Order: sequence, then C-alpha cells, then structure tokens
Amino acid sequence: MNAQSLHDDAIVIDGLIIAKWGRELLEDMRRGGLTAANCTVSVWEGFQATVDNIVETNALLAACDDLVRPVHTTADITRAKEEGKTGIIYGFQNAHAFEDQIGYVEVFKRLGVGIVQMCYNTQNLVGTGCYERDGGLSGFGREIVAEMNRVGMMCDLSHVGATTSQEVILESQKPVCYSHCLPSGLKEHPRNKSDEELRFIAEHGGFVGVTMFTPFLRAGVDATVDDYVEAIEYVMNIVGEDAIGIGTDFTQGQDQAFFEWLTHDKGYARRLTNFGTIINPEGIRTIGEFGNLTEALLRRGMSERQVRKIMGENWMRVLRDVWGE
Amino acid sequence: MNAQSLHDDAIVIDGLIIAKWGRELLEDMRRGGLTAANCTVSVWEGFQATVDNIVETNALLAACDDLVRPVHTTADITRAKEEGKTGIIYGFQNAHAFEDQIGYVEVFKRLGVGIVQMCYNTQNLVGTGCYERDGGLSGFGREIVAEMNRVGMMCDLSHVGATTSQEVILESQKPVCYSHCLPSGLKEHPRNKSDEELRFIAEHGGFVGVTMFTPFLRAGVDATVDDYVEAIEYVMNIVGEDAIGIGTDFTQGQDQAFFEWLTHDKGYARRLTNFGTIINPEGIRTIGEFGNLTEALLRRGMSERQVRKIMGENWMRVLRDVWGE
Repeated sequence: MNAQSLHDDAIVIDGLIIAKWGRELLEDMRRGGLTAANCTVSVWEGFQATVDNIVETNALLAACDDLVRPVHTTADITRAKEEGKTGIIYGFQNAHAFEDQIGYVEVFKRLGVGIVQMCYNTQNLVGTGCYERDGGLSGFGREIVAEMNRVGMMCDLSHVGATTSQEVILESQKPVCYSHCLPSGLKEHPRNKSDEELRFIAEHGGFVGVTMFTPFLRAGVDATVDDYVEAIEYVMNIVGEDAIGIGTDFTQGQDQAFFEWLTHDKGYARRLTNFGTIINPEGIRTIGEFGNLTEALLRRGMSERQVRKIMGENWMRVLRDVWGE
Repeated sequence: MNAQSLHDDAIVIDGLIIAKWGRELLEDMRRGGLTAANCTVSVWEGFQATVDNIVETNALLAACDDLVRPVHTTADITRAKEEGKTGIIYGFQNAHAFEDQIGYVEVFKRLGVGIVQMCYNTQNLVGTGCYERDGGLSGFGREIVAEMNRVGMMCDLSHVGATTSQEVILESQKPVCYSHCLPSGLKEHPRNKSDEELRFIAEHGGFVGVTMFTPFLRAGVDATVDDYVEAIEYVMNIVGEDAIGIGTDFTQGQDQAFFEWLTHDKGYARRLTNFGTIINPEGIRTIGEFGNLTEALLRRGMSERQVRKIMGENWMRVLRDVWGE
C-alpha cells in the first residue's frame, strides 16, 4: 500500500491541536485526513469562560457538520472515519477551569471534554506546571484525579512539572499521557521529557504523544518532517510501539496576541517563556499536509503496522481504556 | 491604674475574629472594649461570593453605626477609640478570593480589606497551607505579595505552611504577621509555630498575634485565661514585647455547619482536621469578657506599658507600617 492510500485508510488522531477554530481550519483537517483531534478549549480560562468557549465551538461544529462530528466516545471516532469526517474531542490544557469544584469534572465530561492537562506551566490548585518549582500533586489534585478516573477523562501531563507528573502517574488508576511532548534526549528544554520520564510513564501503562513544535526540536526552526520522525522514533525506542502517538500542537491561524496570552502566567501576569519564531517543520507546516507524516514514517523504514499504530490506533486504544467506551 | 481602668483606656485590637456577624456580636465587642478587630469576610469563597459577604457586612455596619465604624486606615482606629466604637477591619483567611487576578488585590483594598492570609490550610495559586505538604511560594504568589505591599495590605501567615511562610517573610518588603497562632514549644500541632519560626518572623520585622484556641493550647479544653497568658508570655520571650499582639480567633455564634465547612478543603472536599469540642478558655469565653485578659496579663506581672503594647498598641504600629496611614 503506498503512503497516500495508507494515510487515507488509517485512523489518524492528533493528540493536541490549539488552532484558531473556524470553517477553514476544519476544512484543512479534512485535507489532512484527520479522523479525530484533541482540540483545546481552555488554557487560562475559569469555569464560565470555558463553558462559553465550548458553547461557541459547539455552534461552529453544528454549522460545519458536513466536515466534523463531536466525539464523546471512541465509537464516535469510528463513526467519523466511516463518514469521512473529523471527530472533535474537547480538551483542556489546564485544570484551572475546574476551579475549586470537584463536581465540575463531570459537568465538563458531559460537555464532551475527554482529556485534561493537570497544570499549564505554573501552579494551580492541583499541582504545578513545568515552568516553575514543582511541589507535587496537592491533596485536592488527588481528589481531581480520582474524579477524572471515575467519569472517564484522561489526565494529560505535557506542561506539568516533573514531580506532579510522577505523582499523577502513580495516583491514577487509568492510563495517563503526555499528549504532546519531545524528548530531552534530543534537546534539553524545560518542556521536554527525559528518557527516565518517558520510561516511567510507559512502565505505568501511560501514553506519549510526540509533538513537532520546532523550538523544542533538535533542528529548531530549520526542522523538516524527517526531524519530527527522528523524535518519534527516539520516543518509540523508549516507550515501545504500542504507547506512542501523535500530538502536533498545531497553532494554525493564531495571532501574536494569542501567543502573548499563552506565554504569560494566567494569560497576563509574568512572562514564562518566549517562543521566538513559530514555524512548523517543513513538509508539515499545515494540518492539510498531515499525509506527509505517514509518508515520512514509511520512508524512515517503519512497517505499515507501526505507522497505523503511531498515526492513531494507539490513541484509539488508550482513549477507550480511559473513557470506557 | 487598676485593670478595668487600664483596659478602658487602652487601645484594644483583636487580630482575628471569625464570628457570626450580627448586632448582638457587635454589642459584645463594645462590652469587651474592643477598639478594633480584624474580621474575616472570606475563607473558601471566590471573588464574587467574597464581594457579596462584604456587601452584606457593610449593610450590618451601617445599621449598627452606633457601635462600629469601618476601618481603612489607623486614623479610623483612633477615631473609633475616641467615639467609643469598635473599628472593623475586613480580613481574608485565604488569598483564594483574589482568584487569578492580581488586580483584585487593589479592588479589595478599596473595599476595606487590610489583612489577607496567603493560604488557608491547603494549596492555592499563591502557596500552600499548613495541613499539607508545602512546595513554597509560587511565582504568582510573589506577584501577589508585591501587589499587597504596593497597595498596603498585610500578609498573614497563620494557616500557611512552613516553607511558604518563610518565603513570604523573605519576599515581602513590608512587615508580615502570624495574626493568630500558638507556640509549638508549649504544644505540638500542625497549626502551631516553632520557636525558630517565631524567631524568624520577628528577626525580619514581622509580627505575631497570639490565639487562644483551646485545641492548640497546652491545657486543651480545660484552659483558662491564665493559660492563654502563659502562651502570650512564651511568645513574647521569643519575639520581644514590640512584635506581639492578640489574635483570639473568636468564632462566637457560629454553628456546627460552619465548622464542617471550615474543616473541609474548599469548604466541602476532604476533611483536613477535626476540632472536637470548641470552647474558649475560662474567663474569656466571650468577646464581652475581653477585659479579663488585661487583668490576667497584669496578674502575670506584666507592666502597664507591656500590657498596652500587647493589647493593641503594637498592632496599631505595625498596621500603620503596612498600610502607610
């Protein structure tokens, strides 16, 4: 089977997209052959602002139901594939939207939120992010993990600090993930994960989505889709071919004001990081070019079986494990 | 000057009252000869619920302006003394009401909030309380301390963890306090402060209000006002006679539901502690008996000068230092 046919046939799941939502973007998802994607609807927002984001995105999905369908279960992902649509999983990059209410976890689950990152870069009520000293998972955080386990919501640790991450991995009764990360074995960065961290999550039944954000890649802004594949292979060699997937971190369509908001604590307070130039690897600059990733994985010498797992089947399995349906 | 005359003449400031507000309570404050008190208007509440508490309490103070006056500056405390009223300082026992907005610090300052405890028992966005593992002051917490310094709002560390407390003491450019604590030198308890902690805050220009909450006193529920004075003297021997004051923690009029709310994280989540029987020391069971404390301090052999400092003059000075007026 050639690359294009394999890509068209495969389940393709992107574990993290934080793009500017709109019809044009959803069309590009179809061009890229995405079966489903974890789409960020909350970062610094509190409860109500997050509900507002969801309401707004619901309206967009309804208006574009020729292109997309909402995902509450993995059966919805299967249906999306059958219909030639992209399944939209709502995800948070910060548990901040739960505020101080354990009961909000179930509220958001009912609204279609399937994956929630415990912290975004800094401390919240649950634990601490990867851009400041990390005192670990709080007592309240343990209650939130238990509730996420109960309702079937995946714990994401990509932007979470090392201590909090380790404690969530140990605390959770269901698989957890780094939905979008890169290995510090290829480049040292506070956001990248060490070989030990990658091994630890995999040994505890967890999952790793590999991102392609060029500031964290060895080749930096000059990276191509092959550099992305190098990172995927590096991670696969540590976590194994069943615990790995894709999590691009596409920010397609976002403007400078968005990145300013993203890189300041709470969206406005102290600056936490400065990305510099943001450009995706050559060959996969836009979501529509997703097929080139399948081709590059094959070119690297991976088997069709491995490519199918990496491109989406592994995500599908682990989401079913966590969601229970 | 006899005890009663001294009490009537002295500035009497209670650094912490979390009673059930109402006219009867304000009348008891007058019976007890209180010149001013730090009155809790927020513990687990978020921004808007705290504003609602303030609005409700404002109405009570307006209805009882024959008994009390609001305090925004130490000149208001002086005026209260001259008028034979009790000055009401609004205080928080948790920085949670600031939510994620540094700008809310100034908003609350304008509403009359003069003292804010950084954390209540557990982790918030600022740091961690004394009933769980404490990872220290967060980056956001440092910004909050700076803003509290700028607007003139005192940092209170009574229910704050040891690491966060130490770091706030070092971070703040203005004096900070334990508004209501007891020494662990007399009884080991997570809420009590070690000799080293008491020495550390005093050496850095800070202040200690001594509480009388019987579960934390050596004599427990059998304690009398003289046991309270023993603790005051113990603390004074460490921090000196200029850095010490009163912070009773009167909960007068509160019911069992209130204590259930207080002793659970966020007011409803996991139980953090269980007070058991709550009874104040014999001789100072009610705010109206405040005069007995002055008498007991004199009986202990303290000078009139020392008693005046302990009963309120020290609080007055440190509040002026922090508030700037």
